[in-house]
Amino acid sequence: MSDREVLAQLRAELGDALDTTDASLEAARADKSGHASTGRPLAVVHARTVSDVQATLRIASGTGTPVVTRGAGTGLAGGANAGPGEIALSLRAMDRILEVRPDDLLAVVEPGILNADLNRALAEHGLWWAPDPASRDISTVGGNIATGAGGLLCAKYGVVRDAVLGVDLVLADGRLLRLGHRTVKGVTGLDLTSLVIGSEGILGVVVGATLKLRRLTRGAVCTIAATFTDVGTAASACSAVTAAGLQPAIMELLDAASLAAIHDLLGLATPTPGEAHVTVQTDGVAAAADAAAIATVLEAAGGRVAVSTDPTEGERLLAIRRSMHPAMARLGTTLIEDVSVPRSALAAMFTRIAEIERRYGLVIPTVAHAGDGNLHPNFIFDGPDVPAVIWEAADELFHAALDLGGTLTGEHGIGALKRRWLADELGDDQWELQRQIARVFDPQGILNPGKVFAT
Amino acid sequence: MSDREVLAQLRAELGDALDTTDASLEAARADKSGHASTGRPLAVVHARTVSDVQATLRIASGTGTPVVTRGAGTGLAGGANAGPGEIALSLRAMDRILEVRPDDLLAVVEPGILNADLNRALAEHGLWWAPDPASRDISTVGGNIATGAGGLLCAKYGVVRDAVLGVDLVLADGRLLRLGHRTVKGVTGLDLTSLVIGSEGILGVVVGATLKLRRLTRGAVCTIAATFTDVGTAASACSAVTAAGLQPAIMELLDAASLAAIHDLLGLATPTPGEAHVTVQTDGVAAAADAAAIATVLEAAGGRVAVSTDPTEGERLLAIRRSMHPAMARLGTTLIEDVSVPRSALAAMFTRIAEIERRYGLVIPTVAHAGDGNLHPNFIFDGPDVPAVIWEAADELFHAALDLGGTLTGEHGIGALKRRWLADELGDDQWELQRQIARVFDPQGILNPGKVFAT
Ligand SMILES: Cc1cc2nc3c(=O)[nH]c(=O)nc-3n(C[C@H](O)[C@H](O)[C@H](O)COP(=O)(O)OP(=O)(O)OC[C@H]3O[C@@H](n4cnc5c(N)ncnc54)[C@H](O)[C@@H]3O)c2cc1C
Ligand SMILES: Cc1cc2nc3c(=O)[nH]c(=O)nc-3n(C[C@H](O)[C@H](O)[C@H](O)COP(=O)(O)OP(=O)(O)OC[C@H]3O[C@@H](n4cnc5c(N)ncnc54)[C@H](O)[C@@H]3O)c2cc1C
Repeated sequence: MSDREVLAQLRAELGDALDTTDASLEAARADKSGHASTGRPLAVVHARTVSDVQATLRIASGTGTPVVTRGAGTGLAGGANAGPGEIALSLRAMDRILEVRPDDLLAVVEPGILNADLNRALAEHGLWWAPDPASRDISTVGGNIATGAGGLLCAKYGVVRDAVLGVDLVLADGRLLRLGHRTVKGVTGLDLTSLVIGSEGILGVVVGATLKLRRLTRGAVCTIAATFTDVGTAASACSAVTAAGLQPAIMELLDAASLAAIHDLLGLATPTPGEAHVTVQTDGVAAAADAAAIATVLEAAGGRVAVSTDPTEGERLLAIRRSMHPAMARLGTTLIEDVSVPRSALAAMFTRIAEIERRYGLVIPTVAHAGDGNLHPNFIFDGPDVPAVIWEAADELFHAALDLGGTLTGEHGIGALKRRWLADELGDDQWELQRQIARVFDPQGILNPGKVFAT
Repeated sequence: MSDREVLAQLRAELGDALDTTDASLEAARADKSGHASTGRPLAVVHARTVSDVQATLRIASGTGTPVVTRGAGTGLAGGANAGPGEIALSLRAMDRILEVRPDDLLAVVEPGILNADLNRALAEHGLWWAPDPASRDISTVGGNIATGAGGLLCAKYGVVRDAVLGVDLVLADGRLLRLGHRTVKGVTGLDLTSLVIGSEGILGVVVGATLKLRRLTRGAVCTIAATFTDVGTAASACSAVTAAGLQPAIMELLDAASLAAIHDLLGLATPTPGEAHVTVQTDGVAAAADAAAIATVLEAAGGRVAVSTDPTEGERLLAIRRSMHPAMARLGTTLIEDVSVPRSALAAMFTRIAEIERRYGLVIPTVAHAGDGNLHPNFIFDGPDVPAVIWEAADELFHAALDLGGTLTGEHGIGALKRRWLADELGDDQWELQRQIARVFDPQGILNPGKVFAT
């Protein structure tokens, strides 16, 4: 069927929800990965209701037209990038909170609501949804679910996978399924809710979610700033904290190159060359005792340590960490990587990164959610396209993580950017099995084609 | 192929691991559900290695012979029951701990190890695996994973789904897949580990698992005993505890019929008719403060409350709860049901149970993991087979739970006993989709045929 006919069908069914303006089509080509599709998609559909989503997918499956689902487009794996011949299906306008149940500690929401907007509304009930990606102000709950997002607090409070009871999913053919349940426990049939979490738009469109909430009881917060002469010592110190059985709410590590760029951005004094920083927060009733115990471990591991109970000082320290993205953006185009290793292997991974830097003549500023072994090495380059040498270095980085018992992506997903490596981690048999499972949901392969599974 | 030929192939490949003694074949017919298969299976294979499992499955798929995987056979859904023409594949002999990593808080184990044996070994490292089914002394870790087991502590410390990083799975055709990872975070591809958890032997055989551990830090424990004039008030009181944002480690509710039977078994004084009990434990650094807060809520909700910090008294109170199974067994054959409802609906569910008792002239002693809305109503009858009237009452019970936003099974699974109701909860579309997913793992349908999905 011709593009014109597909558009005519969409217009007839969806009216105003169909958007073919240049600016919208252009915006739908890219997410925040620095990567864009080869050209503009056919159309953007701004779904307002579940029926809009179903109608779009019925037309798409009837005409064999690919659909790329999109939340806020803050993804870092190119997953939401839509190209020629594709429909970009935006869920951003479906942003209502349908139900909040403080007694059952759950909320039912539409997928397009921003994480921070949801949490502002929940705070009025004394509740919160724990997943806190650094992008919480700009990313949607549906996107968080589709990517299985993590965040700073997730070492203690869990990732998205730990905070969703059920999802409503529209299949490629337009049928609506209600997966999961409203109960905290349940083993009825296969756990398709978990399967959809992190599935990056290839199994269906998340049009609603039942979220597992917590009470807002973080209480007093203690913040620790620790400085180390080098990143290896800092990483070993973080591993020692975990190995001691201590549980920080937040434990972030910044290497020297990251610190230098951030200090430059914020106009702070130039840090001592080579020095790495670790920022830790503890919370809850035992915040002070936990902070003291963690400070002791960090000091014994070679850190210069300061503990503060002042919230302003805590925010100041975290603001440094949160300035990583803008600091990198000033240096050039950034490919933000996202490998994860067992927590004991953190220092070993930094050694491997240093080797890659030397071999390729690169500087790879790296921050880590050190409480759970998740590293974000940043590759910086000029111009819009990732140069081949950077992909070669990234290839070594991925294999280094796998060698250490790690995984390709801790929280950003495979999307378009890492599909080349997926079979390296899964093995061919599992890769093929996963692909067949996706085909059960989407027999024609019209959902996010070419993402996750390189075809 | 004839049974004789299948047996000859198994004997040639597996030698001693093949068991066709009467006693073993007879034992493989049943689990602890009170339900048995229609007759003896072909053989029992006592797998000693992953290769044994692979060899068994290669022969099974080559000959089209069904395989029923079995841990310790303590299941309550008939899932491990093997019948005529089937191979019972026991994992119980594969019980080694392959690795314990206190620094990464993980252990790698074979599936046949008993939950309690594992936890005894982990305790030497100051570690524990949190899932604590009441059957922990007699059930395997592989069975716990395959059923997605819960336990008394799971309201606070999570169920099996929260405590597994990866599983090694042998597919129906004998291929071995390694699912998941050793890292605490990871979103590489589809989350097949979660899909296998609770899959009751229909997707493959779990031959190894990487478990997520906790430090043994439960610390001082406070125990609360609360008595209520009736079960509805007791249930509302438990809901009030959750709604207040308090988090007991354990919160168990016993109704009057359960209490009467247990007191009778243990030779304790007859309880006041109608009275229901709630037993709560708190732990960790805030154990005393949490216990005080919970006691206040329970009192305000009408409870007569006693708080104890004496571990012996705590054990005495929990021993009453743990005597439920033997107390029921004395009354007759027991069908232990397992519905779960949103926590706010606990009292409403007890009302529905009372209505069913009246309508069918039954007594249905019921205990609840009240901290997470999971109820175990016990149907008691004479003789080996569940009478039709009990299934009718159970049918109403299931639909009552679904009406209240609940689910058919909180922790025991669907197995053979609840497959009739699965589509009632999932809907026909989701039921069919789940079945197709199972077929991707097991195209011939030789794994646990007739379990979960009634065909
Ligand atoms: C500054 C910055 C900081 C970040 N920090 C973090 C962080 O700390 N942790 C983290 O995990 N990520 C982080 N990210 C990445 C990104 O914000 C997350 O991946 C986020 O979850 C994406 O949400 P989104 O709404 O923008 O989704 P999009 O980018 O629009 O989509 C992401 C993927 O999900 C799919 N998708 C989106 N919505 C749906 C839906 N309703 N149904 C089905 N599929 C859907 C898309 O097809 C795509 O594959 C960061 C990004 C930026 C720019
Ligand atoms: C007294 C008593 C108390 C109980 N209390 C609880 C409780 O508190 N919480 C709870 O959740 N359950 C409880 N149960 C039920 C039961 O103990 C659990 O379901 C347990 O997880 C089953 O483990 P098992 O090794 O006995 O498995 P089995 O009964 O042998 O098998 C159970 C199911 O899992 C499959 N299976 C077993 N091993 C594997 C494997 N390695 N790979 C693939 N599939 C496999 C089987 O095919 C079957 O479908 C209780 C049972 C009893 C008798």
